[in-house]
Amino acid sequence: MNDLNGYFAALPTPFTDRQGAIAEGSLDDLVERLVTSHLSGLYVGGSTGEAFLLSEQERAALLRRVARTCAGRSTLIAHVGDPDPALSGRLARLAAEAGYDAVSAVPPFYYRYGFEEILRHYEWLAGQTDLPFLIYNFPALSGVHWSADQIAQLCDLPNVVGVKNTCGDLFAFESLRRLRPEARLFHGFDETLLAGLSMGADGGIGSTYNIQPDRIVAIDAAFRAGDMDTARSLQADANALIEAMVAAGVIPALKYLLTRSGIPMGDCRPPFGQLDADARAALDAAADRYIPA
Amino acid sequence: MNDLNGYFAALPTPFTDRQGAIAEGSLDDLVERLVTSHLSGLYVGGSTGEAFLLSEQERAALLRRVARTCAGRSTLIAHVGDPDPALSGRLARLAAEAGYDAVSAVPPFYYRYGFEEILRHYEWLAGQTDLPFLIYNFPALSGVHWSADQIAQLCDLPNVVGVKNTCGDLFAFESLRRLRPEARLFHGFDETLLAGLSMGADGGIGSTYNIQPDRIVAIDAAFRAGDMDTARSLQADANALIEAMVAAGVIPALKYLLTRSGIPMGDCRPPFGQLDADARAALDAAADRYIPA
Amino acid sequence: MNDLNGYFAALPTPFTDRQGAIAEGSLDDLVERLVTSHLSGLYVGGSTGEAFLLSEQERAALLRRVARTCAGRSTLIAHVGDPDPALSGRLARLAAEAGYDAVSAVPPFYYRYGFEEILRHYEWLAGQTDLPFLIYNFPALSGVHWSADQIAQLCDLPNVVGVKNTCGDLFAFESLRRLRPEARLFHGFDETLLAGLSMGADGGIGSTYNIQPDRIVAIDAAFRAGDMDTARSLQADANALIEAMVAAGVIPALKYLLTRSGIPMGDCRPPFGQLDADARAALDAAADRYIPA
Amino acid sequence: MNDLNGYFAALPTPFTDRQGAIAEGSLDDLVERLVTSHLSGLYVGGSTGEAFLLSEQERAALLRRVARTCAGRSTLIAHVGDPDPALSGRLARLAAEAGYDAVSAVPPFYYRYGFEEILRHYEWLAGQTDLPFLIYNFPALSGVHWSADQIAQLCDLPNVVGVKNTCGDLFAFESLRRLRPEARLFHGFDETLLAGLSMGADGGIGSTYNIQPDRIVAIDAAFRAGDMDTARSLQADANALIEAMVAAGVIPALKYLLTRSGIPMGDCRPPFGQLDADARAALDAAADRYIPA
Repeated sequence: MNDLNGYFAALPTPFTDRQGAIAEGSLDDLVERLVTSHLSGLYVGGSTGEAFLLSEQERAALLRRVARTCAGRSTLIAHVGDPDPALSGRLARLAAEAGYDAVSAVPPFYYRYGFEEILRHYEWLAGQTDLPFLIYNFPALSGVHWSADQIAQLCDLPNVVGVKNTCGDLFAFESLRRLRPEARLFHGFDETLLAGLSMGADGGIGSTYNIQPDRIVAIDAAFRAGDMDTARSLQADANALIEAMVAAGVIPALKYLLTRSGIPMGDCRPPFGQLDADARAALDAAADRYIPA
Repeated sequence: MNDLNGYFAALPTPFTDRQGAIAEGSLDDLVERLVTSHLSGLYVGGSTGEAFLLSEQERAALLRRVARTCAGRSTLIAHVGDPDPALSGRLARLAAEAGYDAVSAVPPFYYRYGFEEILRHYEWLAGQTDLPFLIYNFPALSGVHWSADQIAQLCDLPNVVGVKNTCGDLFAFESLRRLRPEARLFHGFDETLLAGLSMGADGGIGSTYNIQPDRIVAIDAAFRAGDMDTARSLQADANALIEAMVAAGVIPALKYLLTRSGIPMGDCRPPFGQLDADARAALDAAADRYIPA
Repeated sequence: MNDLNGYFAALPTPFTDRQGAIAEGSLDDLVERLVTSHLSGLYVGGSTGEAFLLSEQERAALLRRVARTCAGRSTLIAHVGDPDPALSGRLARLAAEAGYDAVSAVPPFYYRYGFEEILRHYEWLAGQTDLPFLIYNFPALSGVHWSADQIAQLCDLPNVVGVKNTCGDLFAFESLRRLRPEARLFHGFDETLLAGLSMGADGGIGSTYNIQPDRIVAIDAAFRAGDMDTARSLQADANALIEAMVAAGVIPALKYLLTRSGIPMGDCRPPFGQLDADARAALDAAADRYIPA
Repeated sequence: MNDLNGYFAALPTPFTDRQGAIAEGSLDDLVERLVTSHLSGLYVGGSTGEAFLLSEQERAALLRRVARTCAGRSTLIAHVGDPDPALSGRLARLAAEAGYDAVSAVPPFYYRYGFEEILRHYEWLAGQTDLPFLIYNFPALSGVHWSADQIAQLCDLPNVVGVKNTCGDLFAFESLRRLRPEARLFHGFDETLLAGLSMGADGGIGSTYNIQPDRIVAIDAAFRAGDMDTARSLQADANALIEAMVAAGVIPALKYLLTRSGIPMGDCRPPFGQLDADARAALDAAADRYIPA
């Protein structure tokens, strides 16, 4: 098994056209590029991958193909979260068979479950395989809010080894860090990576890592070397790029920028709209300035 | 086609056991009971029906079986909302073939789309069939917030005839009423039905209608007769029951109360937990007092 | 003592000019007009009265002058809420001496107190005089959120007789109605008055009552007569006017419309801005249509 | 004028007893202790100082006495924010006369002003003196939410030199840092100081600085030396203490801990409640462990 450390790109899913199938060639090319980068691995089939706009068959095919292309050269985390636990369970078992190194899932969303219900869910889901499991804390989209104590309880479930923490509450995060010093804590907001590291994150998982992998790794290196001026300067450049992506919509912007970099990604599936000329021009300008050649 | 007026029970889905299949006999019995009540019809496959915990095959089977059992004796609205528009489209077309009278859908949730993206989505989805379409405004669970003007724009889409409005903002609702006098506006919070009617609702759609259909129809009758004392008294009794259901969890409580009334519904699927003895006792007490024999 | 029933105008405060003093002549004229309307009384020195932009001396002078002008012809409620309890206490005692019929206060805001702290505060404040006391539930501005049970506890404090409820949660409101059938419950959102009445409100307190007192009283009369069509039509007209006021800012709009009706109110104090020509034109158009001559 | 850099304790206000006056001796002692610490100065008359529970006379007396005791040995920032701008203006002018080095104010709260209204307010208030002015961004208590662009606009007003930023949105903060490289940006949440520094804060202002001044200064020193392990360890200790304070209520806890350290602070004024024996015991335990002798 590969080690669960460092920085993971949250992989987007390329499509042949707007209503079309997964673009397998582009997928292979993107995986190849990332596997040979300095990132530690990939987080596959999550929010960035438009997972909730894919059918179960497509989610399964995506997980399988990435594993085959990666072929053990990089650490792979399979995201299997869904409103429907049964679907999550099937994807988790598939991921284990396909050779993934870890499983992760956003809490089941839409219905407002109590914490005890969520705890039982994760206990069940993490028990579907023998793989290490990462809780995914993402209140802005899941609508599920946890205290540090509650996340610590989730960390104590069998197989659970840590958390992908995409949450602005760094006070709670630092409490969690002290409560569970051994947990693997990954920061999920690319634009505050340095803040997350300073409060105790071990690494990060993010969508913009796809387009600026070297800068992310360089932030980490500067941080660990105690060169905070360099780290801040790198974070500032990252954020200038991310601001432009947020303005256009992060996932559509990411696919546009990857296409521009030579790997045709297609548009996002509806309901995501398509970027207009102004949005593309703004992204071009940001890319010219902030994406190193 | 049946008329889209009055009061519709949001149908729960009975299961044979906690991990089990749809209980077809119970489903038939519940549909039969509701079809022969004074309600106008059923809202099938929505939040109350645990739609997001069903597979696509189960959602399709549920829609088909209810239509066959109903056999045109009642007005049927198919809920087809999902994070994945393609799935919604398939269910909408299936509903049309199965003989439904109308289609409805919660906006696609999880990702935060802009209003223009949501508008295009509904235009596409409502155009998948020739059936009348009801927008579903449910910000508490969908996370999607609309102004009165925005809902009015949605009402102008081809095939859209109205709104299931499960939203506490009655100022916006009354504005919508004036903006679109011809729209069919259904109030979605059972506990404030009388408030919704007083601000211009045409009828209602709700989960507790399954267990108190006569009281709901009586609230409407008293309201239309101008007997507000009776209407308020009926609403008060409804709310005493609903309070007990909210305390236990509305969908689990509804299934328990229906089971108690003679139609075995089974538990909700996980992640929903099971009612403990205290919760069941509290519901028994509420039912003894507030559900007429 | 006058009776605490019916409809109360939340009185705005006229100023001689933008940085100037309270315009006593206009104040007298407005009080005179309202006292001789069909409203039950006045709610003096509250949010609508720009209380938090007045000095303590001005708040005291305002309370005194209104009482003298009213001279027992109408029921007077003094609002004494403030972040500083000591100031609230002084104003409450002054109100009692000045002949007010009741005292009311928004909970102390800014700091986030626990419910027990708020309860002790109201116990103390309501005990500063022998007058009946109205709790003011206004979460949107105070930031203080209460459950129905908590409001019921506040209603049980000595001297507390009821609640000014400016809160969109009509489920909680109806629960409170059943928990405390004897409490005087006043609806505080003019735009949903009919919804509040249908869920059990006894009357209302509102800022737009100043400019449409007859319509408010007519809504009540139609509601009590069971003529819901008339009631809804009146509420619709009220809301068309209120929409225009909300667009301009309710308090500045109210002062503009009262000035237009013959009582010079001056502008609101800063930080409130002044209405521009477009805002005034929109209010003129709304007034021409929705304020009866 | 003293320089506006480094770390400032948000000064609490000691009282002689629960309904009593400002305890001048304790105030002098606390100021003396802080002035001779390694902190840069004091932030006087703000939220921590229970400003909104003081009369105008008390706020003025507090500002004057602190200035007299400090006697130019430390940098003094006067907080003059209030719902009432006129009061803020009087306090600002008084602060200038009393020898303060800077003025700061939370935006006027309770009413929901538009940004343009807030901008005009700050323009006016910052113009009341010739002193440098710090905007205070504290959405959790003020209810006022600003984008990075809006804060940048506020920074461009005459006399405005920077921001006390007590806000969890570090993405916006970093954007502001790039938009206004020359602005003095102070981090306001003690528990995330290191995160704020890593995203570009120049220093900090906080209430727990009163009880752990050396640790705060040590966090800064470690950060600037690039010794992030030490910085994180110090932040972890700070947070363990802060967690205990949050559980008890930060301001009451701060006064208790200062009293315990030898300067009698009295209780907070009502509506703040008093600490019970359990809360005091928990604070004792935290202090024994995390407050250096």
